[in-house]
Amino acid sequence: MLAAVADLLVESGYDAVTVDAVAERSGVHRATVYRRWADVGGLLADVLAAAATDDWQPPDTGTLRGDLRAVNREVHAALTGGSPITTALIAASFRSPAAADALRVFWLDRFERCAPIVTRALDRGDLAAPVDHRELLVAATAPVYFEELLLRHPSDPDRWADLAADHVR
Amino acid sequence: MLAAVADLLVESGYDAVTVDAVAERSGVHRATVYRRWADVGGLLADVLAAAATDDWQPPDTGTLRGDLRAVNREVHAALTGGSPITTALIAASFRSPAAADALRVFWLDRFERCAPIVTRALDRGDLAAPVDHRELLVAATAPVYFEELLLRHPSDPDRWADLAADHVR
Repeated sequence: MLAAVADLLVESGYDAVTVDAVAERSGVHRATVYRRWADVGGLLADVLAAAATDDWQPPDTGTLRGDLRAVNREVHAALTGGSPITTALIAASFRSPAAADALRVFWLDRFERCAPIVTRALDRGDLAAPVDHRELLVAATAPVYFEELLLRHPSDPDRWADLAADHVR
Repeated sequence: MLAAVADLLVESGYDAVTVDAVAERSGVHRATVYRRWADVGGLLADVLAAAATDDWQPPDTGTLRGDLRAVNREVHAALTGGSPITTALIAASFRSPAAADALRVFWLDRFERCAPIVTRALDRGDLAAPVDHRELLVAATAPVYFEELLLRHPSDPDRWADLAADHVR
């Protein structure tokens, strides 16, 4: 059912994601869909919750720059790739408080998982002093989200990763 | 008529901005509204175009940090203040290509107007070497947009301004 929600979001946007459409696409009975999710926001929240329970770990490239570049390339690929589920969910978050809450939880969880990027950099001596890993990750990734999603202008993920890495050293 | 569009957007969101609703709110005849704007995207684009022709200039505080803090406070106020027209337009940009185009033009114009922040900093010796003013402005402002709009988490505009300023020195 979650795959059906994701397909509908990507193909046709938030307006296409109705309980009826999800029932039809997934082959699950409408009553079952309604029983599980009261509204579309709940459906979207569950799509994100499923993503949040994966085993994603930040890349370990051996350098701070490399780690941030790898994260930024993932963000960039998610925003520009062939399956724009991330963009569709962000767009939906402006209309569904449940989707917005789920996105926040998803991002905060991802930022927490990136804490080893900072501890590894400290162990290697790439970083002279501890830095807030959430702040470092926002500094690296926020320009990519802003340029690709809001400004709709091509963003260079490596450049922003390098600036964030240089900046904390 | 543009004020009517802005009011509707802020009060009720994109779905409320119809040509009929704008005609009713503004007291302008429906046929006149239709003649001027083929669709809602065109209406939104004109709201932004009106903002782009204002005489906004970046603040001149005497320091690079101060200038960036002042810009970031404006961004933060626009995203968190009582009249969330900016947030409403950004939300609409995910559904209207015309609104997205207009937002891009608006931001790129604002970034260009911020070029004096860099030239003044060079003249004062705040900056040792020229930097790309667009990049500097994105570094300062993008985290505020990301945190307030996407992460929906309180953002500290001064902190991000200081980080961007320190980073280029």
